[in-house]
Amino acid sequence: MSDIQSYPSFLLENAVNQFAKLPGIGRKTALRLALHMLKQEKNDVDAFAQSILLLKNEVKYCKICKNISDNDVCQICSDVTRDSGLVCVVETIKEVMLIEHTGQYKGLYHVLGGVISPMDGIRPNDLEIDSLVKRVSEGGVREIVLALSTTMEGDTTAYYISKKLSEFDVTLTTIARGIAVGDELQYADELTLGRSIVNRVPYKN
Amino acid sequence: MSDIQSYPSFLLENAVNQFAKLPGIGRKTALRLALHMLKQEKNDVDAFAQSILLLKNEVKYCKICKNISDNDVCQICSDVTRDSGLVCVVETIKEVMLIEHTGQYKGLYHVLGGVISPMDGIRPNDLEIDSLVKRVSEGGVREIVLALSTTMEGDTTAYYISKKLSEFDVTLTTIARGIAVGDELQYADELTLGRSIVNRVPYKN
Repeated sequence: MSDIQSYPSFLLENAVNQFAKLPGIGRKTALRLALHMLKQEKNDVDAFAQSILLLKNEVKYCKICKNISDNDVCQICSDVTRDSGLVCVVETIKEVMLIEHTGQYKGLYHVLGGVISPMDGIRPNDLEIDSLVKRVSEGGVREIVLALSTTMEGDTTAYYISKKLSEFDVTLTTIARGIAVGDELQYADELTLGRSIVNRVPYKN
Repeated sequence: MSDIQSYPSFLLENAVNQFAKLPGIGRKTALRLALHMLKQEKNDVDAFAQSILLLKNEVKYCKICKNISDNDVCQICSDVTRDSGLVCVVETIKEVMLIEHTGQYKGLYHVLGGVISPMDGIRPNDLEIDSLVKRVSEGGVREIVLALSTTMEGDTTAYYISKKLSEFDVTLTTIARGIAVGDELQYADELTLGRSIVNRVPYKN
């Protein structure tokens, strides 16, 4: 349907095409968003466009953990009350936000920017692995927590990092895999259930 | 959850807030879209923002039918092969696109910009009704097809327009209401079914 749809204006068609490039936005939604924009006040449309341009052009990356930041060093890395000897390695800043949101972690982070994935052309050099190794080599890091996806790519990346860090006196840990809190055992997948038995922990009540 | 979520960057938070203002976009999706933008090339982000600014700042409205257009007179109104004596009155440009897409209509349009809705503060003067009356008064229009929603607001608007046009020699029609093609009678609502019996048409096979 979208191909034969004729737009009354090239400017509208162009905006629809741009909205339709966003993940999870189809052409019908894109048209709705473009028409919504057209109905807004000029100031509001300017603010929308500017917020995106500013995000892309002005955002900085923390020189320590590579998380995005408004300054050279991010809020987390500059927080002296946090444990700087504990570094959690994550794929993207989304995981930083998720872990921060749990309120359970008081160490620092290292954002890789993805995982090793030859299929997608992502090689170790495309990720912030060298900067992690450098960070560990400079001392002060006691433990590295690997919080990567349990996919082939995540496991490969974890293995690659473990090899790179093997020469340093640093403890490597990984986040616990197991049955989610509130989940019923009968619906858990076999692999997770198996791992949760192997990695059983002392019972506390 | 969104309220206690802390963003690592004010620029990111600002972009998320802007995306979250779009209809149907929640804060989680807004974050996904903002991070998606951050991953794109600078040129692509510029093109996205510019397409929206251009749409808002440069788009014109056809001086005849009030549809959006790249020129003073839109493609439809300037198409001499179309029947300029037949004008279909619609609420928004979305309906123009929908009707155009059926390929069944060869007349022109008149875009009201909404329907009369005292609850939302939309009065006749806020709509392109005077311009419709002027268009009819200038002659050349044989038939006005009202293609408005079957809501109280749509019916009120249709009634208001019919009164305004009563002094002119123009036929007023409305699009047929009935059982949708492919629909089963048992699932049709009573009102539609009732109207479809009253407005029955000769059987053709």
